[in-house]
Amino acid sequence: MKAPLTILKIGGNIINKEPILTKVLEDFAKLPEKKILIHGGGRKASEMMRSLGIEPTMIDGRRVTDAAALEIVTMIYAGLINKNIVAQLQAINCNAIGLSGADLNAIQSHKRIIQEIDYGFVGDIDIVNGVAISQLLQADFTPTFCAITHDKKGQLLNTNADSIAATVAAAMSQYFQTKLVLCFEKDGVLSDPKDDSSVIPSINAEQFQTYKKAGVISAGMIPKMDGAFFAMKNGVENVYIAGIHALENTTIKGTKLCL
Amino acid sequence: MKAPLTILKIGGNIINKEPILTKVLEDFAKLPEKKILIHGGGRKASEMMRSLGIEPTMIDGRRVTDAAALEIVTMIYAGLINKNIVAQLQAINCNAIGLSGADLNAIQSHKRIIQEIDYGFVGDIDIVNGVAISQLLQADFTPTFCAITHDKKGQLLNTNADSIAATVAAAMSQYFQTKLVLCFEKDGVLSDPKDDSSVIPSINAEQFQTYKKAGVISAGMIPKMDGAFFAMKNGVENVYIAGIHALENTTIKGTKLCL
Repeated sequence: MKAPLTILKIGGNIINKEPILTKVLEDFAKLPEKKILIHGGGRKASEMMRSLGIEPTMIDGRRVTDAAALEIVTMIYAGLINKNIVAQLQAINCNAIGLSGADLNAIQSHKRIIQEIDYGFVGDIDIVNGVAISQLLQADFTPTFCAITHDKKGQLLNTNADSIAATVAAAMSQYFQTKLVLCFEKDGVLSDPKDDSSVIPSINAEQFQTYKKAGVISAGMIPKMDGAFFAMKNGVENVYIAGIHALENTTIKGTKLCL
Repeated sequence: MKAPLTILKIGGNIINKEPILTKVLEDFAKLPEKKILIHGGGRKASEMMRSLGIEPTMIDGRRVTDAAALEIVTMIYAGLINKNIVAQLQAINCNAIGLSGADLNAIQSHKRIIQEIDYGFVGDIDIVNGVAISQLLQADFTPTFCAITHDKKGQLLNTNADSIAATVAAAMSQYFQTKLVLCFEKDGVLSDPKDDSSVIPSINAEQFQTYKKAGVISAGMIPKMDGAFFAMKNGVENVYIAGIHALENTTIKGTKLCL
């Protein structure tokens, strides 16, 4: 039987709020099973760009990453945020090891092909090095990924953290009984975007399409859900979209995905 | 018999020069034995501070690190420089894993005690986690350290890269037959600071004191030499201070330390 593994992805809105981040990291550190953390970027990269006189460019909530923006996201995601999270986890005895996709060639991607929009130095994932990540887990280390990957030719690439979470979860499900929790500022997927209490307890692929057509699920939630269903279809046993209380109990509150 | 291990430290003046950095990384990647890279910071942190309107403060060549400076060195050292070096090494099939001292609690330090000067968030090393670093080496990974450590209470600390190199080498010599190469812009320790060809081929502790008193060895070379002798006295088999051609041949040209 495969050993259990929990993969927690925390979004930028959690990273921005210090007491909430601390609480989520504490819950994560307490998990007895093997675990992986994946974190987004938060507002800090855009703030840093503005401080340097560079105006961030976003299209449909996705960052256009030119060479200057890539330098800044690499500094902020892989440096400032990742190392501060690792230091916080180490302080509460979680043996974290901070990683980008370049480290151990853990996540290899290619620069996104230009179609209508040139997103610049943005990576679409090709392959996850499940063997190397498993070696770290077997040593009881806790891999802690930022959203930077590489092309194995020396180029770093800015990569969507939800996509990393989904793809890493799918790859690790070969070796572990894998649970993926996508944690963000709401308590789950909402049936009424204006009502935070309208959490949909479970959702299957068909219902997702219906909600999408009705405009209930829109914008940034669509790629998040696409990733979540990709993980479900590729061996991940349980996938949840949940809020900051997600790991407080063994039964996860939030939206559970079904096939 | 212990397996051989080479630890290469590269200084800021090498990191600043792209073609030289590439060449040194290529020589490093070709080493058949187990290896560790430790890199300094370069000018980029000071440049970034000035871009943000912060004037860097240096005392005797050492950076005073207030909270704003710590954020910037963490971004530049652990993010920008470390991940770009890792991506470059991966591109030439060296299985690098970028680390700060916080990752795996690899290097634990304490905030420097204030005596005459308050250096701010600067770390003096307490302990190196040789067991964790050995686990990475045994898996054929190449640990690649930046000069950031932590206090295991959640605080990152800016730490001298030569000190990290010396302390990590001493710790690893318990497990490996360890060679330490401190690589910088000159071809070794010079007997005449104005003559780059006046490399001292070997130097012992007594000669070091004589050169120091005569003012031949001064400024930033003194802590570098202190670290190098610390490594020699603590089990490291061979210590060299050498230039960018250091790893071209199995016989290292430069200054060899003797006890």
